[in-house]
Amino acid sequence: MSSEIKRAKKGWSVPVSKMATNTFNPIRNIVDTMKLTPHPDKPMIALSIGDPTVFGNLPMPENCEVAVTEAVKKRSFNGYAPSIGYEDSRQAVADYVSTPTSRVDSKDVVLASGASGALDLCISCLADEGDNILIPRPGFSLYKTLAESLGIEVRQYDLLPEKSWEIDLDHLESLIDSNTRAVIVCNPSNPCGSVYSREHLLEILQTMERKRVPIIADEIYEHFVFSGQTYYSMASLSENVPVLACGGLTKRYLVPGWRMGWIVINDRNDALVEVRGGLLKLSQRLLGPNTLVQAALPSILANTPESFYRETLEYIENNANVFYQHLSQVPGLKPVMPQGAMYMMVGLDMKHFPEFKSDVDLTERLVTEQSVFCLPAACFQYPNYFRVVLTVPTEKVSEACERMAAFCREHYKPINGINGKPDL
Amino acid sequence: MSSEIKRAKKGWSVPVSKMATNTFNPIRNIVDTMKLTPHPDKPMIALSIGDPTVFGNLPMPENCEVAVTEAVKKRSFNGYAPSIGYEDSRQAVADYVSTPTSRVDSKDVVLASGASGALDLCISCLADEGDNILIPRPGFSLYKTLAESLGIEVRQYDLLPEKSWEIDLDHLESLIDSNTRAVIVCNPSNPCGSVYSREHLLEILQTMERKRVPIIADEIYEHFVFSGQTYYSMASLSENVPVLACGGLTKRYLVPGWRMGWIVINDRNDALVEVRGGLLKLSQRLLGPNTLVQAALPSILANTPESFYRETLEYIENNANVFYQHLSQVPGLKPVMPQGAMYMMVGLDMKHFPEFKSDVDLTERLVTEQSVFCLPAACFQYPNYFRVVLTVPTEKVSEACERMAAFCREHYKPINGINGKPDL
Ligand SMILES: Cc1ncc(COP(=O)(O)O)c(C=O)c1O
Ligand SMILES: Cc1ncc(COP(=O)(O)O)c(C=O)c1O
Repeated sequence: MSSEIKRAKKGWSVPVSKMATNTFNPIRNIVDTMKLTPHPDKPMIALSIGDPTVFGNLPMPENCEVAVTEAVKKRSFNGYAPSIGYEDSRQAVADYVSTPTSRVDSKDVVLASGASGALDLCISCLADEGDNILIPRPGFSLYKTLAESLGIEVRQYDLLPEKSWEIDLDHLESLIDSNTRAVIVCNPSNPCGSVYSREHLLEILQTMERKRVPIIADEIYEHFVFSGQTYYSMASLSENVPVLACGGLTKRYLVPGWRMGWIVINDRNDALVEVRGGLLKLSQRLLGPNTLVQAALPSILANTPESFYRETLEYIENNANVFYQHLSQVPGLKPVMPQGAMYMMVGLDMKHFPEFKSDVDLTERLVTEQSVFCLPAACFQYPNYFRVVLTVPTEKVSEACERMAAFCREHYKPINGINGKPDL
Repeated sequence: MSSEIKRAKKGWSVPVSKMATNTFNPIRNIVDTMKLTPHPDKPMIALSIGDPTVFGNLPMPENCEVAVTEAVKKRSFNGYAPSIGYEDSRQAVADYVSTPTSRVDSKDVVLASGASGALDLCISCLADEGDNILIPRPGFSLYKTLAESLGIEVRQYDLLPEKSWEIDLDHLESLIDSNTRAVIVCNPSNPCGSVYSREHLLEILQTMERKRVPIIADEIYEHFVFSGQTYYSMASLSENVPVLACGGLTKRYLVPGWRMGWIVINDRNDALVEVRGGLLKLSQRLLGPNTLVQAALPSILANTPESFYRETLEYIENNANVFYQHLSQVPGLKPVMPQGAMYMMVGLDMKHFPEFKSDVDLTERLVTEQSVFCLPAACFQYPNYFRVVLTVPTEKVSEACERMAAFCREHYKPINGINGKPDL
């Protein structure tokens, strides 16, 4: 008996809410419909997975292990913490993120289940059904997922690949209306790997100040920047623009599964008085993140050796260079050199790949023929790019690049330019 | 310069969402407005706190510590788990909750951040703004908090203290209309300490089957029942009524801070096909609970010794008896003997306490005069009762009872009955 007949017979089919219906993960929606059948003779290399722990080449810092183990042993962190987190843990975050121009305190910190939980609290505290928030394009897909599940409209402002993915501020400004409740700025960026300069951040802040739109700063990658780059937190550069900064242990400490994130409330002239109260109330719905990790937080943030950060970054930057050097030689590919985070975007000159309808189509075939999986940038609402992750073991990076080069050489079709010469 | 002047000057005050505005924790709303000034000569005894770990007298099972420590050491559980949880952890929950009449599988389990997270997923998956769900009165206040923050109406069905807090099914049925999306049944119950008989559960299920309303079973206290009582899971007693059962480690394993909860999807004739999909999608908003605890779950559920469960229950049941024996002798108090969970409700014969306007008023004064804090049942939308927790160290229970007796003796006013005799 088929499901439908059974249900009809019993006459009982429980409907789902609009919220569930409207919750989409664009990555899943795209990836799950791709035919990902690797070439049988070539081991799969997944350059798609944003989880830096999957290859085992980037271990968490030793002291993270020690700190959590001690928290378990003490047996005094099994009870409920305040829903915004233990005072000591919040103070530790405050100390960690404070700068001379943006001092914060335990009372300005709300702990949450990962940066995802932090973003969810911020979005649901600021906007209602029918309101809109501005998000980057290309951008991390969760912003859209979280907002749309609550009936909040997302408006995507353009990032400019030719300017290292800076924000097209004119475009951003043109999207703002009286229902705009916040703009999310992701710096350093997933998927772009961009790190904004002080000047660009100041431009963004000026725009927001003029338009009176508060900022949700997704700074989960924070100090994850390559040599020669400096990371400035959004809050450190403005005395007037209220900033809810979202961060967490996930990326810098390589422990995404621990689900430890936070919001730092950078209030300016009491503009966020109600928001602060709102975040506190919303935090009571789920009662905060795991207490063992909360208890470990002060030690993790204070005692992780500089060498750990440096070595992790060197590894990733080296991979970025390997990718860049290889792929910029490949006809039809235009890698954009990243400045931080864990990702690189690679442009596809689609007119030279007439066999393929789209980045999704091309990356699917790259799996079939070369067993290399890059995430099509359609997942980030952006066409004709794909994203590679930089946390893959370096030997695999070289191997992947060679296979990508072979793939492109095979499918690349030169086009005669105006002067009868190939135009690339 | 006052806050308001500063804000006006800068002209920037960020409004909060309806969701944040509509999120209320009734317990906080009541408790925070009480004047809780203990008597200076008497150390405070808090019988109000639903966290079984605060007194240190009820430690978690040894093997919980071992299981989590091992998960940390293995270093292979730091990455992202699937958003509904690791397959093995879900299978462990399925094995733990399955009964001969309600077999479930890993695919029927969704892990979440505590039972709170599980309830939030269930409610937001089943109901929309404008719909209603039915919840018990007196009942755990989070149901109301979660639903109302999403604009979902709650309708409270009565529990009957004189029938050990069974559900008034006629009243419940009278509340159901075409917008009713679910009924939450809490068994064993916070705050009542009731454990429903097989017969009563079957009656509830019959009603729901007739009315075609699915059940959210809050079974976080599950096997936490006193001698002579048997716990039946809702799902084990019906072949036709779809049941989303919420549980977790919080209470039975005495680790509320770990935030490990679950939903067990007990589908019947594919009535929950869409709900299953909806829960999966909603779980992707926050990416599941802490992976270290997830990894420890199979060992915790399989290897916790029977003696741990037995000793914990004996301790609590003994406290229940001490409370009951003492308080049933006290003029004006009517304790209702609990059958499980960690709480006892105590009725207040308010006509004998004319000094006090309400249970809130009386319990506030009990703090002032005797430094004993019982949670007024107004926190559970129920008048003229208070709730005591049974997890307090036994010596404090006796001491608290004596002070409560002294308080009542002092404030109790006999009333002449019809025959000129006191009516109690
Ligand atoms: C830009 C960005 N923000 C937020 C998150 C979510 O982080 P978490 O795993 O801490 O929820 C991610 C994870 O990939 C991310 O890339
Ligand atoms: C009846 C009931 N359900 C759910 C919960 C929430 O449990 P958790 O701490 O796992 O979120 C509690 C906690 O007190 C409770 O009493």
